[in-house]
Amino acid sequence: MTVQQGKIGLIAGGGDLPARLVDAAKASGRAVFVIALQGYCTAPETFGVPYQTIRLGAVAKILHHLKVQGCTDVVLAGKVQRPSFGSIRPDWRGAKILLKIGIRSLGDDGLLRLLAREFEQDGFKLTGAHEIMTDLVASEGVLGKISPDDQAWADARHGLAVARILGQADVGQGCIVQQGLVLGLEAIEGTDEMIRRSALYARPGVGGVLVKASKPQQDKRLDLPAIGVTTVEEAHKAGLRGIALLAGGTMIIDREAVLARAEELGMFVVGLKPTGGDDHEK
Amino acid sequence: MTVQQGKIGLIAGGGDLPARLVDAAKASGRAVFVIALQGYCTAPETFGVPYQTIRLGAVAKILHHLKVQGCTDVVLAGKVQRPSFGSIRPDWRGAKILLKIGIRSLGDDGLLRLLAREFEQDGFKLTGAHEIMTDLVASEGVLGKISPDDQAWADARHGLAVARILGQADVGQGCIVQQGLVLGLEAIEGTDEMIRRSALYARPGVGGVLVKASKPQQDKRLDLPAIGVTTVEEAHKAGLRGIALLAGGTMIIDREAVLARAEELGMFVVGLKPTGGDDHEK
Repeated sequence: MTVQQGKIGLIAGGGDLPARLVDAAKASGRAVFVIALQGYCTAPETFGVPYQTIRLGAVAKILHHLKVQGCTDVVLAGKVQRPSFGSIRPDWRGAKILLKIGIRSLGDDGLLRLLAREFEQDGFKLTGAHEIMTDLVASEGVLGKISPDDQAWADARHGLAVARILGQADVGQGCIVQQGLVLGLEAIEGTDEMIRRSALYARPGVGGVLVKASKPQQDKRLDLPAIGVTTVEEAHKAGLRGIALLAGGTMIIDREAVLARAEELGMFVVGLKPTGGDDHEK
Repeated sequence: MTVQQGKIGLIAGGGDLPARLVDAAKASGRAVFVIALQGYCTAPETFGVPYQTIRLGAVAKILHHLKVQGCTDVVLAGKVQRPSFGSIRPDWRGAKILLKIGIRSLGDDGLLRLLAREFEQDGFKLTGAHEIMTDLVASEGVLGKISPDDQAWADARHGLAVARILGQADVGQGCIVQQGLVLGLEAIEGTDEMIRRSALYARPGVGGVLVKASKPQQDKRLDLPAIGVTTVEEAHKAGLRGIALLAGGTMIIDREAVLARAEELGMFVVGLKPTGGDDHEK
């Protein structure tokens, strides 16, 4: 376990996750240095650890700072939406990655995987957010106090199968299912937008389930799909009955708050394994 | 070919296709009786053939009229969006179908396949719209006067692979790809809505391709995905460069007008085979 005790270089995008990770790392006695990605990570000064704001494209600069700071582990966490080419302004290492991508293979995860490989090439140990915060990843079973009914279980299993099939094509991490019918599929628009749209096509009063899953080939150290309190609230507004997560393959950011809010709103949150006996699953 | 000369019972949904089919059938000397689906098929009185307006759920009534009229072939054509349970008001045959669906297996096509089976059980020959109008189905190659560039070909192939993977889960019939990234996936919202949404996530000025494909297991006699002039115009408004269709598995409604409008707008329309050597295709 000694290697886990090295200094963490946290590459921080948007959302709540980076700040929570810093707290968890500090609580376990580990030193953290934050690379705050410009335009994504807001308020890194509130994290209470040293940080440097750098733009995403300046990969050589990021690596340089991590080395100077003596980081041994690198954690990528937080939201980084698709940057425009104009905003990337790559330095030479950034340009090297962009060249590798070429025109054909830029799936959702292609960019992240290449970025991670650069860190490893330079001797850093790529560490998953879930290795720092062990309660971050959804476990199996009914996670809150409310249980799905038979229809909702069936929709959850069907949605998980669909999401995993989607993931094979390196696209999307979620879908919404109502009475066996897929109302929405998540591509680049994000979960909240998919939820809002699906409300337009849902039958009123009969529920529906939001399903989130990682891709079958996904590197768990990179950008696992996540839900938070906002996700629960958006799902409720859209008339959904609950949320089903791939157990071991999705993150719940602020688990306690998520489950409390779900209970207040009468919604279930469950973790499912992909081999749940569903017809669609191999 | 004698069996092809029987009287056609056209179960007509919305859009232009039913009227065009009536014209094509008449032109080939075949008699047609139209079941105009209430709420979907507008202005059946303009078709110039006998018709009866009946609601979708009244399956026994539909079958009765087809028999009384002496129809031997049944063609399903036109848009039928997901009906609400309240609006179906099934008669006994309709209820039989709904019972078979159960709670788990209602994919996009589940309902149509079951409906088609009822027609066949009663001795009707299920005929595809493309068997009546042979130029309806997209052929392979560059269909208009404008050719895609390398990036657009790559996006078209990638999109076709993604759409086919999606189809395995009995979901969706389309997607939008820009520089290797899937901007949108079509579930229940329809192609036009997907196109409009994807414009919000596209990089400006670098194109993007709309891809439409039937599902691998799709019965070609039922509801093949279709594009028309409106699709071309929506795609152009969203900044897309062209449209790629699964050759042999999608319909172009009013082919001449579609290709003329595409040319005016500087857009390509191509037909692709699924085994085009793409990495994602088996």
